[in-house]
Amino acid sequence: MTDMDRKVAVGLVQMQCGTDSQLNVDKAISLTRAAVAQGARVVCLPELFCSRYFCQREDPACFELAEPVPGPTSDAFARLAAELDVTVVVSVFERRAPGLYHNTIALIDGARGLTGVYRKMHIPDDPRYYEKYYFTPGDLGFKAFATARCNIGTLVCWDQWYPEAARMTALLGAEILVYPTAIGWHPEEKLSHGECQRDAWVTMQRAHAIANGCFVVAVNRYGFEPAPGAADGGGIEFWGSSFVAGPDGAILCQAPSDAETVLVAQLDLGAITTQRHGWPFLRDRRIDAYGGITSRFLDRS
Amino acid sequence: MTDMDRKVAVGLVQMQCGTDSQLNVDKAISLTRAAVAQGARVVCLPELFCSRYFCQREDPACFELAEPVPGPTSDAFARLAAELDVTVVVSVFERRAPGLYHNTIALIDGARGLTGVYRKMHIPDDPRYYEKYYFTPGDLGFKAFATARCNIGTLVCWDQWYPEAARMTALLGAEILVYPTAIGWHPEEKLSHGECQRDAWVTMQRAHAIANGCFVVAVNRYGFEPAPGAADGGGIEFWGSSFVAGPDGAILCQAPSDAETVLVAQLDLGAITTQRHGWPFLRDRRIDAYGGITSRFLDRS
Repeated sequence: MTDMDRKVAVGLVQMQCGTDSQLNVDKAISLTRAAVAQGARVVCLPELFCSRYFCQREDPACFELAEPVPGPTSDAFARLAAELDVTVVVSVFERRAPGLYHNTIALIDGARGLTGVYRKMHIPDDPRYYEKYYFTPGDLGFKAFATARCNIGTLVCWDQWYPEAARMTALLGAEILVYPTAIGWHPEEKLSHGECQRDAWVTMQRAHAIANGCFVVAVNRYGFEPAPGAADGGGIEFWGSSFVAGPDGAILCQAPSDAETVLVAQLDLGAITTQRHGWPFLRDRRIDAYGGITSRFLDRS
Repeated sequence: MTDMDRKVAVGLVQMQCGTDSQLNVDKAISLTRAAVAQGARVVCLPELFCSRYFCQREDPACFELAEPVPGPTSDAFARLAAELDVTVVVSVFERRAPGLYHNTIALIDGARGLTGVYRKMHIPDDPRYYEKYYFTPGDLGFKAFATARCNIGTLVCWDQWYPEAARMTALLGAEILVYPTAIGWHPEEKLSHGECQRDAWVTMQRAHAIANGCFVVAVNRYGFEPAPGAADGGGIEFWGSSFVAGPDGAILCQAPSDAETVLVAQLDLGAITTQRHGWPFLRDRRIDAYGGITSRFLDRS
């Protein structure tokens, strides 16, 4: 099989997450099986699917939701991946030590089990997304994993706004950038800004596909989750809309904003080579001139 | 006037370029006047508007089209800019020495005249875009210029596919990224790939606006230019479609693909601050982890 003949079917599990962690994990397993039944050989789960999106408030009790990696959730998916001979991208609230937590991807590759870990590098902190309280920024750098069927680059949610993250992951050899995500609307902003926000989210990730000539897989949760203690109907309406973009930036498939969805897309990995031959961006990068990227700001213009 | 009250009207001159350089310059001056008459205080001209897009073939005779900077074209626009008290972004085929040429922006700022130069950093080389034959890659780095009314970042065409270029220019303080451009369809590909290509071009540049929370102005030429000596109808159909994107990535206005157009857009520079407060991407960049951006490839994953 030449590089041009390689194909892989990727499954995206867009799910709603409830208050019972065991039920969430059970559902994630069940939907992973459904994706595999539809042919998927790589399955991607959304960010922190084991629980509601607890970062809507700062509450030390929520640290109880964390678990080690390896740990119960990665073990459960390691058993499943071995049984089904598939690769699974599993998002976990990682307890590394008391007082030290990460927003982590466990990369589980069939019979090989847990083959790698990525810790979310860019941590947001905005109203109802108080992640800096919970997660120490990743200290493992960017990651691409050679799995049985393709090279998978793992990134998480807020990372998706950073071209540097996509670029470095692609330079590491990733053929598919996978973004488990938990993003949605503030209900009070949805009418005025909602469509523009979601469109920006799609546009940004399509641009990563184009700039790097690779596939992008974005997997979001959906459904409304109230902000604990909010008396005013506040909370987040996660916007689903999980999608796959090809190396030319075209959207290959997309889930609705408001429904549980298992998407399975057949990815023709040869399209990466074709695209990069047509638009050879990697050839012309001015690596002699990019040093300023590691500056916070270039104050003297 | 606070930062939030600053506004600037930007004019985009989308023009067709003929075989007579003097007529092209005369038209560019006339359309610049038209943009100013509609209120523009910054006017952007397309890439290499003084001539047909000569890079469709490699011909040493085309080096005769080059001129120094400062030189006749930048002088003409310096007189115009002083007369009208406007800023003009002027693309010039720069002759620096015999055998040393650049694809250059002359930044002309009202009575100050020629205030800066940017030399295209990323040089393409693809069928009918044989730019590596003509242009030495820029050696001045990325640039943002503090003009009378706003900070303008200058980039050119192929640069638009590089997130690094947009990022560094924004870090230099640019409020508006301006991309004079000459991009179009190969007629034989237009039906199968044309819409996807143009959409990728728009998407990529909108993503620069989003990632950096700044305005993007893309100014393209339009019209079919035959490839010299091509017996088969070959050539490039430049696709126009010049546009302005806001810091949230929304398209504020766009020209058609097939007509001479002067677009004037009122840019609310305060929207940059508002957007960056809402989505504070610059705050969270992992500058400790981006060193690999200056590598050609990160071969060991």
